[in-house]
Amino acid sequence: MTSGERRRMGVEERRQQLIGVALELFSRRSPDEVSIDEIAARAGISRPLVYHYFPGKLSLYEAALRRAADDLASRFTEPQEGPLGSRLRRVMARFFDFVDEHGPGFAALMRGGPAVSAGGARSMSAVSTTHALIDSVRQVAYDQMLSHMGVVGPAPVRLELVVRSWISLVESTALIWLDGRRIPRAELEAQLVQDFAALAAVAAARDGELAALLRDLVKGEPGDGPFTDLATRLIALASP
Amino acid sequence: MTSGERRRMGVEERRQQLIGVALELFSRRSPDEVSIDEIAARAGISRPLVYHYFPGKLSLYEAALRRAADDLASRFTEPQEGPLGSRLRRVMARFFDFVDEHGPGFAALMRGGPAVSAGGARSMSAVSTTHALIDSVRQVAYDQMLSHMGVVGPAPVRLELVVRSWISLVESTALIWLDGRRIPRAELEAQLVQDFAALAAVAAARDGELAALLRDLVKGEPGDGPFTDLATRLIALASP
Repeated sequence: MTSGERRRMGVEERRQQLIGVALELFSRRSPDEVSIDEIAARAGISRPLVYHYFPGKLSLYEAALRRAADDLASRFTEPQEGPLGSRLRRVMARFFDFVDEHGPGFAALMRGGPAVSAGGARSMSAVSTTHALIDSVRQVAYDQMLSHMGVVGPAPVRLELVVRSWISLVESTALIWLDGRRIPRAELEAQLVQDFAALAAVAAARDGELAALLRDLVKGEPGDGPFTDLATRLIALASP
Repeated sequence: MTSGERRRMGVEERRQQLIGVALELFSRRSPDEVSIDEIAARAGISRPLVYHYFPGKLSLYEAALRRAADDLASRFTEPQEGPLGSRLRRVMARFFDFVDEHGPGFAALMRGGPAVSAGGARSMSAVSTTHALIDSVRQVAYDQMLSHMGVVGPAPVRLELVVRSWISLVESTALIWLDGRRIPRAELEAQLVQDFAALAAVAAARDGELAALLRDLVKGEPGDGPFTDLATRLIALASP
């Protein structure tokens, strides 16, 4: 990149470029290991110029996190067409794409957020921004799940528990996968869809309202979908 | 307590008393809302004397956390006698006792640890101590589960995933329960035991080794245990 091109970048364009560079670096290594010098070098500008756009690594990290959160939230959007099992399977595939792309950064973030401010301490602001962003993505995932299940308005408390605790299961499964990638991700994507059905069935076994909802959903499932596949596999498992 | 009694307390005894007072306060309110002044008043000593035993709130918090972690880890210890389902049910009851006793502190801790050092920033040391303690308790829970399942040596990778992701499901279920306690905890304790069976069954449906292990375990289950209860309920659910 020549200095002539650099000069033509507007403020917002330069900010977006720096966010992109930072996100790429924060995704591939733990943010604690990424320096402003490295970000400056990658962006082809000087270190002081980075500080002109972002007061410090923390604010650049927060901006990168915001872009990543928007990106992740968008992957839960899925047309409300076709069987639920296939929709969830596609959402899981896009979720694992995201985890794959942002592995180390995702792991650092989900383990309470990295310590990104200077001097080995991190500010309350960083902690609460990180938590607020994680919670906002979880909320998008939750709302999408309920919407796909055809639930309008506040969910019954046991359904809410199933959906929210399944979302945390998805997160922890992804973190375990990242630690060595010892199981093919496609297998985990399929398993998580079936885990949802299994957790919902366990809860429905003591909640008539949830049971009725599940029966309606399963009616729409095809014979070769993941839910029917699960039922078949479980029956095979039960007969030695 | 009179000053005469106070003078007779040894250094270690005084430290243990302060840890007990701090843990009680940190358990009932978010640690960020507990002051050294309050801890001093509760212990019946002066603020400067607290600092004589602990350099600051952070070190007192870490000591309290260590005691809580030891306490929590001990609740996963269960005699290897009787059906697995009943053992897990007792472990879940003791886990929810702990969550009940330490509610706000547990919630703050699991959300990445509270910001406990002075000036609104928390040190790297606090973050890594917190993570290390949480991880050590998770490891105790994991080792206990494998031991109860009769697995010696490193677990097969899919069994490891099931056990570790179930532990995270237990944590998130407890956090959701703490947020309003809208579902009776006994119901959740029973449900989590059945969730373990359901997640293991989903994984076993694609892993012959895990399937064989599960079949052996289920053979030891009585007709009125939680696993048989689950199977009965699921069959009822499947027949409208």
